[in-house]
Amino acid sequence: MNGEIIAIGDELTSGRILNTTSYFAAGQLFAAGHEVTAMTTIGDDPKLIGKTLLDALARADFVIVTGGLGATSDDLTSEAVADALERPSTFYPEVLRQIRATNKAAPAEPHPSLEKLAWLPAGAHALKNETSAAGYFLVHDNKPIFFLPGVPYEMEELLVETVISRLAVWEGEEVRQVRQRLYRVAGLPETGINQRLAPLTEGQGRIRIGYYPVFPEVHVSLTVVGSEERDTDHLFGEVDARIRGLLEENLYGTEEETLEAVVGRLLVDNGMVLALAESCTGGLISYRITRVPGSSEYFLGGAVTYSNELKEQMLGVDGELLAEYGAVSPETARAMAEGIRRKTGADIALAVTGIAGPSGGTAAKPVGTVCYGLATSAGTEDCKSSFNGERWQVQEAACHKGLDILRLAMLRHDYAKNQSCQRL
Amino acid sequence: MNGEIIAIGDELTSGRILNTTSYFAAGQLFAAGHEVTAMTTIGDDPKLIGKTLLDALARADFVIVTGGLGATSDDLTSEAVADALERPSTFYPEVLRQIRATNKAAPAEPHPSLEKLAWLPAGAHALKNETSAAGYFLVHDNKPIFFLPGVPYEMEELLVETVISRLAVWEGEEVRQVRQRLYRVAGLPETGINQRLAPLTEGQGRIRIGYYPVFPEVHVSLTVVGSEERDTDHLFGEVDARIRGLLEENLYGTEEETLEAVVGRLLVDNGMVLALAESCTGGLISYRITRVPGSSEYFLGGAVTYSNELKEQMLGVDGELLAEYGAVSPETARAMAEGIRRKTGADIALAVTGIAGPSGGTAAKPVGTVCYGLATSAGTEDCKSSFNGERWQVQEAACHKGLDILRLAMLRHDYAKNQSCQRL
Repeated sequence: MNGEIIAIGDELTSGRILNTTSYFAAGQLFAAGHEVTAMTTIGDDPKLIGKTLLDALARADFVIVTGGLGATSDDLTSEAVADALERPSTFYPEVLRQIRATNKAAPAEPHPSLEKLAWLPAGAHALKNETSAAGYFLVHDNKPIFFLPGVPYEMEELLVETVISRLAVWEGEEVRQVRQRLYRVAGLPETGINQRLAPLTEGQGRIRIGYYPVFPEVHVSLTVVGSEERDTDHLFGEVDARIRGLLEENLYGTEEETLEAVVGRLLVDNGMVLALAESCTGGLISYRITRVPGSSEYFLGGAVTYSNELKEQMLGVDGELLAEYGAVSPETARAMAEGIRRKTGADIALAVTGIAGPSGGTAAKPVGTVCYGLATSAGTEDCKSSFNGERWQVQEAACHKGLDILRLAMLRHDYAKNQSCQRL
Repeated sequence: MNGEIIAIGDELTSGRILNTTSYFAAGQLFAAGHEVTAMTTIGDDPKLIGKTLLDALARADFVIVTGGLGATSDDLTSEAVADALERPSTFYPEVLRQIRATNKAAPAEPHPSLEKLAWLPAGAHALKNETSAAGYFLVHDNKPIFFLPGVPYEMEELLVETVISRLAVWEGEEVRQVRQRLYRVAGLPETGINQRLAPLTEGQGRIRIGYYPVFPEVHVSLTVVGSEERDTDHLFGEVDARIRGLLEENLYGTEEETLEAVVGRLLVDNGMVLALAESCTGGLISYRITRVPGSSEYFLGGAVTYSNELKEQMLGVDGELLAEYGAVSPETARAMAEGIRRKTGADIALAVTGIAGPSGGTAAKPVGTVCYGLATSAGTEDCKSSFNGERWQVQEAACHKGLDILRLAMLRHDYAKNQSCQRL
């Protein structure tokens, strides 16, 4: 079914509160096979509430309205809806009883604020009986409209427990199947991925592929819909396999899996411990590695050797080598990797040295030049990259590539063959 | 002025991505004195995009559209807008040149994806010239429409730098005077800041103060409006001085000034060079310091001593001391700070050791316990903090506090008196 979500509250349109309830509802509805065509956020303005609801009803199969159901004077949703749908505000004594029963702090004497909660548009039904949380639905023009509180946890509970299930019944026989997966891709630009995967959706209305650059990587979402469970599973499995085949080693993970978590898993799988020597990334790779819970199992630590002196003192890089090739050179990167590996006793050591900018670039080594060294018991290798953008972007991209070098080295077991770096 | 915000993207209507850009825009517009009447989120559907834009234009004085401006086939905003406004898609060679100039990775030969970015509705003007970020505006029915990328940091930068100022000018003859400043506050919660500053706005319609928690710090925005220039400047100067007085040392910077940039400036002012020894923060403080251009002038580097072995090997921390007090202790933090200062020859050295979680906590040292050591020529001091939250939050908060320790030490010149840490 096609639905619309309307969130009401001045606190949302003034940017004081981030609207997480519409996001939550959209995700739940999507997972249940519905399509949300529009999400609208408006202030506590009765005319606008009425107009927005009528517009949504004209377009959608169902509408979810959140917010403005409270007891204070700026909560205007129920009144506005009564006016717009021409369903007179009606006093529901059983709603008031329910509020009193579940809310022990409520005063026993008649109380205008409490009573306000029991005046609903004619035809309203409470969504749930055992709770004091506001929340009702009514059917108008043969379409269900759900009214939920704006408080996130109350809204989320009612949505999951009552709305999704009522909508499922509403659909009747033809239950729509939806399968989804998120793919995380490293080392390929959005356009390159698009070129590889675009053929999968051609002439295929049931398959949808989305591309989301999350600098410096790209996420790809696959959605497969169908009416029959086994058939949908089958198509999803088929497309999933094709995507994996087309992305090859550039696919590093799915769903919530981060690149640093994948590197950590591979280190554990290979029984290796890691050390790092960072210059231009300034500690970012170390930080990314240590963000993963349990990383102390496979990460010893490292050095941030930002100055040349520290490269000599902490890593034992030869001063003459530094003078001859410069701090940003494959030679220095190799010496840094070997140095930190020797100092720490790590199995695998990565070193990064580069020019993050904005100054420090030369014609031969422009801003964005980054050299990597990778040292293992099998030997040492190096490679060189070049990144665009501002300082922080060069640092982020250099870090991401460094993590990917570690991933690919372990994936290919090339640290033993001494050629993972060159192939990247 | 009354504005509407339209966010476009299937990733939003499917609940895969939380819409933070509309929230950000609403907050900024509100602070600048505008009213957002509706925020609409829709999928990448050309017809719906066109219809939604036309509806918004009919109601509002200006419209902001975000998302769907990218280079892939699911980015449909510009085409949809061209159709809806009957402004034929027009090729803008200067936009393509600009994209190529700022994006070195762009292929030199003609490329359909790149060229797609240069096809805009007739009458469009780029919002900013020195960036490859998509973003343009056009005037339709005498109302400005702004098209911004959906990527939050790109969108936020363009909004703050170009949209807000253009809207301020847009108001015609009766140019409303708007003065704004952002204050960055460390070491005080939002409610604490609110208590201090709330009296400033009482009965003062021309002064608006906004509070934006940006974990782990809080940003405060001041907006002063008026009709006359000199009078507005005067009031703004007055309120600015009062805010500075009320926030005292907790105000670390204004506008875009980051905590690490302030620390860098203070290091330069004091003629000191810094070294760091990090355990639980895993390199994050080093990275934050090196994000600042020119940081090599005052930052030597440091060690990420995640394992106890490395604390001994790289920093010379006494193994018996580690065994007696544990890795997370004021004693170890002091020894780490002294060790890295000795090894590097830095003037000032900060060490951090703590339990980021989720495991590793004990009754005496729960998750979130973090110890700091600060070593200078005047001696060594230590302090202890405790942070709540998940692993990454403990790491971020511990990093932020570490940077603030450095800032306050140099601000008070207390590194010479050996008591900055205790006072924090």
